[in-house]
Amino acid sequence: MDQFPLPVARIGIIGGGQLGRMMAKAAKRLGCTCVVLDPTPGSPAGQVAGHQIVGDYHDPARLRELAESCDVTTFDIEDIDTETLIQLEREGNRVLPSPSLLAVIQDKLTQKQALDDAGIPTAPFVPMPEPSPEAFAKFGYPLVQKSRRGGYDGRGVSIIRSPNDYGAHLPTDSLVERFVPAAKELAVVVARGLDGDCRCYPVVEMCFRPGENVLEMLLAPANIPAETAQAATELGIRTVEVLQGVGIFGVEMFLTESGELLVNEVAPRTHNSGHHTIEATVTDQFEQHLRAVVGLPLGATDQLSPAAMINLLGAPGHRGRPVIKGMAEALAIPGVCLHLYGKAATAPFRKMGHVTVLDPDIEEAQRKAIRVRELIEISGEGHP
Amino acid sequence: MDQFPLPVARIGIIGGGQLGRMMAKAAKRLGCTCVVLDPTPGSPAGQVAGHQIVGDYHDPARLRELAESCDVTTFDIEDIDTETLIQLEREGNRVLPSPSLLAVIQDKLTQKQALDDAGIPTAPFVPMPEPSPEAFAKFGYPLVQKSRRGGYDGRGVSIIRSPNDYGAHLPTDSLVERFVPAAKELAVVVARGLDGDCRCYPVVEMCFRPGENVLEMLLAPANIPAETAQAATELGIRTVEVLQGVGIFGVEMFLTESGELLVNEVAPRTHNSGHHTIEATVTDQFEQHLRAVVGLPLGATDQLSPAAMINLLGAPGHRGRPVIKGMAEALAIPGVCLHLYGKAATAPFRKMGHVTVLDPDIEEAQRKAIRVRELIEISGEGHP
Repeated sequence: MDQFPLPVARIGIIGGGQLGRMMAKAAKRLGCTCVVLDPTPGSPAGQVAGHQIVGDYHDPARLRELAESCDVTTFDIEDIDTETLIQLEREGNRVLPSPSLLAVIQDKLTQKQALDDAGIPTAPFVPMPEPSPEAFAKFGYPLVQKSRRGGYDGRGVSIIRSPNDYGAHLPTDSLVERFVPAAKELAVVVARGLDGDCRCYPVVEMCFRPGENVLEMLLAPANIPAETAQAATELGIRTVEVLQGVGIFGVEMFLTESGELLVNEVAPRTHNSGHHTIEATVTDQFEQHLRAVVGLPLGATDQLSPAAMINLLGAPGHRGRPVIKGMAEALAIPGVCLHLYGKAATAPFRKMGHVTVLDPDIEEAQRKAIRVRELIEISGEGHP
Repeated sequence: MDQFPLPVARIGIIGGGQLGRMMAKAAKRLGCTCVVLDPTPGSPAGQVAGHQIVGDYHDPARLRELAESCDVTTFDIEDIDTETLIQLEREGNRVLPSPSLLAVIQDKLTQKQALDDAGIPTAPFVPMPEPSPEAFAKFGYPLVQKSRRGGYDGRGVSIIRSPNDYGAHLPTDSLVERFVPAAKELAVVVARGLDGDCRCYPVVEMCFRPGENVLEMLLAPANIPAETAQAATELGIRTVEVLQGVGIFGVEMFLTESGELLVNEVAPRTHNSGHHTIEATVTDQFEQHLRAVVGLPLGATDQLSPAAMINLLGAPGHRGRPVIKGMAEALAIPGVCLHLYGKAATAPFRKMGHVTVLDPDIEEAQRKAIRVRELIEISGEGHP
């Protein structure tokens, strides 16, 4: 019979943001302890983990200190020094998802190549080490330029529709891919265990503000035909299987106007498009991730209620100690579940929290979420 | 418009057990910070709160330190020095539920008298300051003797069916009440806000091991006719309204064989019979309690899935560092949600965790919960 002394596992989390925070809470439930590595003292995850190492994700000594004090090390961000992680893994420390996979995914070009090599459908692309009007013209418009490294939440991505847009290009080592006129953007959150067992949450629909790449609203489940949901689920699972990933992976997809599914990007970590799983599904993505990396069986991913999710972003023009307006009024709406991340300072468009709205009718959930977004404003103390 | 700077509130929690632990997690979600008062360093709640004052619940200096450093002070236990709390409240510190109400409820005799005076149906009772065979005989058998103070989880309660059971009596200031042959034991978890708004979770059914008073299994919702559920809900709300309570209250009831509802006991705190609300309802009891004491609107109490809940108790004869057997096997059962409390040492029948099982079919949830109870054993390291 299986047997665990307490703590069941000591979990190292590289990155002390909101994902680590929600992971630390799940870890405690499972009888695990946590250590967080983050440069900001009292980080969102550090506040609940109980122990934080203050240090940079690229500092080999701090990464070593973390990995050597834990049974398994994982991460809530992607911008980590993978060379050190690979070395630590070689020395027998368990790091999951695998640092060599993280290295492939960190670089959007190698990620794309890996998916393409494995036969995963993606938008056509070419490497673009030195962007130029000629190179863009040769590939053809409209195109999407992505910097190979460091992009997230829409940073490092530029849509170039014609030569006139060249001023918006990124002057960096990048790739360009065909602009896909997507009918919808979908995401599939997939968990894969140490034993290869795969579980998939119901497909969600991501709505973006036109012209911006920040998630505006998430609808779970997506409003798509059953056969499309089935195909997206299978594609999500196949993607994580070809990558041999262990843990939670967010697989973002385009559903084209002709009904084709193309994988846009893979995140080797818990994902913004899975936040609703905390309230809306049996096992949330954070616990699921931990079950996977600790080597416990994966949990059920059944959804108990339709849900809409919005991020709470810092108001433009505001910095400093956060002030939350409209919180009480928003909480009075039935089904509103608020998550604040405890960040000490707000900044324009910084993710300060999120709200999941549960409602038996997903359109009603969506209306309530829009109302919450109108109500809640996160500004900085002392600002107008 | 309402406006809160972060933290939304500083919450003081007297008692660092599992209830405080789950409350601290909910507090972080709402943007609150927590300080826990508990004599054991690294208590279950202290591990997630971020800050613990190590001290006794009866130490006036530590209670003062806690209350004066927080916006609102609440508790996860009942055995607290209420005189100090009442004084602190007089000085303008917010303590909720009200310490004078806690004082009434702490003493099972005054609790019973308060309920009786307000016309809440309870089993007939008399005070029994000095138990004797004569006094018992005068009241008549079968009876239940309850010590006025310090009883919980079945301690401080003795069932005396006949003069032959006198050896099992409690030699202490107590009350005796008529033994009620209950068809079922029910519980209603009620939240009441600062503004008097009342919300009630669906009625649950508590199953006890014959002859013991420790909860064996909780079924949510209770398997009772709709009109009984309605009556129990109304009785639960009326009970909390007559007490003018603010926060979460667990109202335990007997459903007699003739279909009558009698209030057995009221707990002025989050309750073991509401643990399933974490996964099975929209707003869990811990967040609901905080919304109430902070003065935020109460949340929806709709249940999303039937649930069965069992406590995980320390194995008889075992002490020391906990070892959990059968955890992986139990987690492989779909719908099993595990909560370990992170207690450093086990002891016989100590509450070490709980498991909520979600299943669309409550009988299946119950079968799975029974299976989990067979699988999981919490023993002490180094013991057989």
